Amino acid sequence: MSENDRDSRKTSPYRLHGRVWIDGPEGTFLGYGRVVLLERIREHGSISAAARSMNMSYRHAWDLVESMNRQAPAPLVISRTGGRGGGGASLTEAGERAVRLFRNAWDAYKTFEKEYSRNLRF
Amino acid sequence: MSENDRDSRKTSPYRLHGRVWIDGPEGTFLGYGRVVLLERIREHGSISAAARSMNMSYRHAWDLVESMNRQAPAPLVISRTGGRGGGGASLTEAGERAVRLFRNAWDAYKTFEKEYSRNLRF
Repeated sequence: MSENDRDSRKTSPYRLHGRVWIDGPEGTFLGYGRVVLLERIREHGSISAAARSMNMSYRHAWDLVESMNRQAPAPLVISRTGGRGGGGASLTEAGERAVRLFRNAWDAYKTFEKEYSRNLRF
Repeated sequence: MSENDRDSRKTSPYRLHGRVWIDGPEGTFLGYGRVVLLERIREHGSISAAARSMNMSYRHAWDLVESMNRQAPAPLVISRTGGRGGGGASLTEAGERAVRLFRNAWDAYKTFEKEYSRNLRF
């Protein structure tokens, strides 16, 4: 760290912060929590286990998945009901693309935030 | 508008959205509502009239002003108590700079959001 960086860090305690999401035809399509839910469905193989891992009600998780599926060009999550173990759910190829779409937007925003904060002087 | 723009607008109903604020030593320093409050104080010449114009309690407006004043290098709002009309408040030069600081950050974010949305394809 140069002397200059150290000085400016000391004299500028101000930083930009924010959050971003992606809107679709009905309003919010992909936000941070929705995308974590998609990732947990991929990890756990079911909507209920994914919801449980986030301390989210099954009903709420189901509503979020339905909202995302309705707004996407193709379903992001496919669920199989019944059978031994009570069915399960998995991310489709469109689901994987949705995760990347949001993560890329998030990363781009974070880069903007960092750059802007670096030059923020009161 | 070219044929291509029209096509891509039709096929991409997805847009980035977000909100930004500026953190200071104690956490939130300047956000959208706080900066509107500063602008209303400038307009109305008192914290109570500014609060009323935003359907905000005087107590809440006062707390926000105190939070901003504490975190800024110099007070953003100076209030005069008592006297005929119950005193008043005005924006200092630092207050004007704070408004510009936030508005510039907001505008920069909106430019980023618009550019990013333009290239957003699912």
